[in-house]
Amino acid sequence: MNHDEAATLINQVEGWELLESSTKLRRTFTFKSFIAAQAFAVKVGNISESEDHHPDITYGWGFCTVIFYTHKINGLHENDFIMAAKVSDLIS
Amino acid sequence: MNHDEAATLINQVEGWELLESSTKLRRTFTFKSFIAAQAFAVKVGNISESEDHHPDITYGWGFCTVIFYTHKINGLHENDFIMAAKVSDLIS
Repeated sequence: MNHDEAATLINQVEGWELLESSTKLRRTFTFKSFIAAQAFAVKVGNISESEDHHPDITYGWGFCTVIFYTHKINGLHENDFIMAAKVSDLIS
Repeated sequence: MNHDEAATLINQVEGWELLESSTKLRRTFTFKSFIAAQAFAVKVGNISESEDHHPDITYGWGFCTVIFYTHKINGLHENDFIMAAKVSDLIS
């Protein structure tokens, strides 16, 4: 997917941003404890395992940041946006 | 803790490295799946919750990186090295 395609799709996943010339998709979620952030990370991880499309997940006290990209193409695929939407749905 | 003290203690936690002028402590662990990395992250998180000293944890397919530092002093405390040793013990 090129930059223009990514720039169009990003509007469909509120709260997510494009990184590194549209090769990655990131969103940070905030929480009121470490354990709440960890529980969210695990939910994201379990969805990504069942979809076989894994993000990088960073969490600590009160936050969880999720980054999607497609290793095989070293950039973004439509799948990444689908996963981003599914992750967002976890908190809506 | 100043740089010299940190540089001495780092020798006691094999596999960990000092970051950003000795203000953080990092180690990356490798795994053979996403779920194994996530399971390790949760073990680290649960220990850190019980000790009330929380790292930043990043994981994805096959890896888990743990970073300890003490927010209150924006640097390293002996506690960070104790936690690093406990985390390392999880895999030994």
